[in-house]
Amino acid sequence: MLKENKEFIMFPKATLERLKLYHRLLSEEEKEYISSEEIGERLGILPEQVRKDLSYLEYKGKPKVGYNVKKLLEELNKLFGIGKSTKVIIVGAGNLGTAITNYPGFANYNIEIVGIFDNDPNKIGKRIGDLVVLPMDYLERVIKKFNVEIGVICVPKESAQEVANILVKNGIKAIWNFAPTFIKVPEEVIVRNEDITSGLLSLKHMLEVKDQRIRKD
Amino acid sequence: MLKENKEFIMFPKATLERLKLYHRLLSEEEKEYISSEEIGERLGILPEQVRKDLSYLEYKGKPKVGYNVKKLLEELNKLFGIGKSTKVIIVGAGNLGTAITNYPGFANYNIEIVGIFDNDPNKIGKRIGDLVVLPMDYLERVIKKFNVEIGVICVPKESAQEVANILVKNGIKAIWNFAPTFIKVPEEVIVRNEDITSGLLSLKHMLEVKDQRIRKD
Repeated sequence: MLKENKEFIMFPKATLERLKLYHRLLSEEEKEYISSEEIGERLGILPEQVRKDLSYLEYKGKPKVGYNVKKLLEELNKLFGIGKSTKVIIVGAGNLGTAITNYPGFANYNIEIVGIFDNDPNKIGKRIGDLVVLPMDYLERVIKKFNVEIGVICVPKESAQEVANILVKNGIKAIWNFAPTFIKVPEEVIVRNEDITSGLLSLKHMLEVKDQRIRKD
Repeated sequence: MLKENKEFIMFPKATLERLKLYHRLLSEEEKEYISSEEIGERLGILPEQVRKDLSYLEYKGKPKVGYNVKKLLEELNKLFGIGKSTKVIIVGAGNLGTAITNYPGFANYNIEIVGIFDNDPNKIGKRIGDLVVLPMDYLERVIKKFNVEIGVICVPKESAQEVANILVKNGIKAIWNFAPTFIKVPEEVIVRNEDITSGLLSLKHMLEVKDQRIRKD
């Protein structure tokens, strides 16, 4: 069963997505104060929407002055658990696993990829960034040693469920699944299914709607 | 300015995401009829939610019988423009560009990747699936020849804006941007920003909320 784990999100999913955008914007902001108008303008979001989203937070901005960037960022950091270090392992050292391991920016969120695993003898021992691809036998040791919370599945869909079972058995708390299939896990494990085709499908839909609008005009 | 292109989505964003899940499930379904309860059960979504989402469509299910799978699928196909072939090119033949090019399942959506480009002489000429990495000079020709609508940016963030400008200049209608930076494009171009770190940030948030719940109990 695909789980949406809604109970672990504190507000509407779309709000969570926008809060991540605000976090990214504010991380690069050097001014002391910023207004909802400016945040909105730079992200293409209505200022009313920005204010609504930020109203979920405890810290409130000052009328006419705006939001104190540092305080807002502190609260968003807390929300995303950025103060705490999160250890992650990747299973599957193909192009996708390699791309994620090398993707810049995880350190900003206190996320550390501490291991990458594969069962292909041609990949084991290969260097990826600061890591060396390890055989699957090492998975248990690495999870225990680093207290790994999140496992990323980057294997073909035929092996995804097997890998998920291994991760669960070794106490992984959350799975980020890139295999294009739905995996079954126990209730208490958090799952996020990432379907790469899905982004293109959204764009296809938007092109379709745009085309229809133009034809109607 | 980051654009959300909201005007080109016909319903709430979260609904669109769920409609994609229904589409995927129904594509693999062999029965003639399916109920909202069964869809919900298999996807971990409440049946009421399934019915609400599907009420946006013209085709209505039959009480006590459920939805005709073929008819529902036809309407979802129309919604996502799956009847029409969409040509896509990828700029950047690193691990991410390679992973996307090789990702299975695009053909199911009538999406065809017709070219992959890079300016690195070490990558040009390399085989990826059925394609050969081409130099950037060939971009214009390929876009025109295949009437390419979507361009995918898989280059480092320093080059993302430059690549976006080239794509726009050559008439690309939609951009799927994987570079961790916001790109500026003219009003009429559709953009979807995909931030890989974002998925892990959601999981970190959910782990954080779960931890707090457990501590409170």
